[in-house]
Amino acid sequence: MSKVGIFDSGLGGLTVARAIARRFPASNLIYLGDTARLPYGAKSEEAVTRYAVRCVRYLVELGAETIVVACNTASACALPTLQATYGKTRVLGVIEPGARAAVAATTSGAIGVIGTERTVSSRGYHNAIAALAPDARVTALATPVLVPLVETGWIDHPVTRLTIETYLQELHSAAPGIDTLVLGCTHYPVLRTLLTELTTAIFGRTVHLVDSAEAIAEALAPALMGLRSGDRQGGLGERHFAVTDLPASFAKVAATFWPETLPPVEAVDLTMD
Amino acid sequence: MSKVGIFDSGLGGLTVARAIARRFPASNLIYLGDTARLPYGAKSEEAVTRYAVRCVRYLVELGAETIVVACNTASACALPTLQATYGKTRVLGVIEPGARAAVAATTSGAIGVIGTERTVSSRGYHNAIAALAPDARVTALATPVLVPLVETGWIDHPVTRLTIETYLQELHSAAPGIDTLVLGCTHYPVLRTLLTELTTAIFGRTVHLVDSAEAIAEALAPALMGLRSGDRQGGLGERHFAVTDLPASFAKVAATFWPETLPPVEAVDLTMD
Repeated sequence: MSKVGIFDSGLGGLTVARAIARRFPASNLIYLGDTARLPYGAKSEEAVTRYAVRCVRYLVELGAETIVVACNTASACALPTLQATYGKTRVLGVIEPGARAAVAATTSGAIGVIGTERTVSSRGYHNAIAALAPDARVTALATPVLVPLVETGWIDHPVTRLTIETYLQELHSAAPGIDTLVLGCTHYPVLRTLLTELTTAIFGRTVHLVDSAEAIAEALAPALMGLRSGDRQGGLGERHFAVTDLPASFAKVAATFWPETLPPVEAVDLTMD
Repeated sequence: MSKVGIFDSGLGGLTVARAIARRFPASNLIYLGDTARLPYGAKSEEAVTRYAVRCVRYLVELGAETIVVACNTASACALPTLQATYGKTRVLGVIEPGARAAVAATTSGAIGVIGTERTVSSRGYHNAIAALAPDARVTALATPVLVPLVETGWIDHPVTRLTIETYLQELHSAAPGIDTLVLGCTHYPVLRTLLTELTTAIFGRTVHLVDSAEAIAEALAPALMGLRSGDRQGGLGERHFAVTDLPASFAKVAATFWPETLPPVEAVDLTMD
């Protein structure tokens, strides 16, 4: 039975796990959130790579045959190292599928990307989009305040609205022709309602929002073929959730993301050894 | 020559280091910022204690005779463990000095505390203030969005103003009689101008703001007696700065905090061993 390991710095990757579970209900999923070391977004490439390598080793030890790096920052920094160890087909990041979806969606060829400082400075989306569509113009903006706003639960809040306005106005000044915006961090889809309203207001047109969760589920189709409608009676594969710190907080917030009853969240110690 | 080790999760403790350097110029200071694992504020007590123990061991190995835990979260979580290992007089936290300054400043007996989630949930300020003034009424509020706003450099920014207004209105609803507010996180003194303006507007009186940096420098007087005006020609002790990630970013921001030229910032690997 195919086992998929999904790794994120914290909670955000649950949107990815949910998209996979919805599309391939019979797949067995192991989710790992590195909550002891989050957030990754403002740390160095070396530190993020070190953490990602440790986390992926844990998933492999538990039997994951396919690994999804659901964190954009970790995808941007650590994917080459991880793929060198485990093979290119076995470890998937979120950036390439997101870039593919953006290229498919844009008409103007002007694509915006918002993400953490490290994701933006890595130029991961620039490179992935350029490989698919050399003529596309990519404008990326680091929006580091959004993750703490989501984590504090200020989803539909005046502070979050003003923060998004500030960032989108900066993006609009740099590239007014954007018709597609990549949500380059797994936390951002939670802000979709505000982002839809404010991109329309500030860019004066409907801006297509790209959420990599759906894109990565699509990219898994070759590996998970046949698990679409369930291999077994009942149809649902196993679900296993683990975090490196604060399992109770994780379980509480995860319950709002996850439609079925969440199994107990395990606390694992992945301090470097 | 007395050597003081100052430890914080990141940059914030530089306000403490600077207060010590100003008061005792001839003291030798070693500063360690655990930037690989920051922020501490939303992590578990166990994780924060584990990190603090590792960081303090590093400072002791470098010869620090007195240790200042400049991080409020680490002071709230890890001080008993650290003092059990190194002795009560050798390891000082920021909470007790801050509580002492708040009790000295209040007239109404109503004291507010703002800090990270972990600092507030630990009830460290409640306990420290109760030990000094059993009749004082303490109201503490977690204000987790402020640290990322400071770190992103939005010091005098509409988003920061609206965030502080939101938090202070919540604090005012809970305890309108507050006349003293403890800035229970080393990042907050950077927001002093906005905090002064908005506490006055919302509470309708001058609210005394307690910054633990000055309080901790005062608490060090017995250990650093004689270093006030300089023991040696020239008068300045040694300064040593180290971080666990991103030394270049640290040096850049630290330069705005530190009046003299900063010596090179060392990167140290304190992964758990």
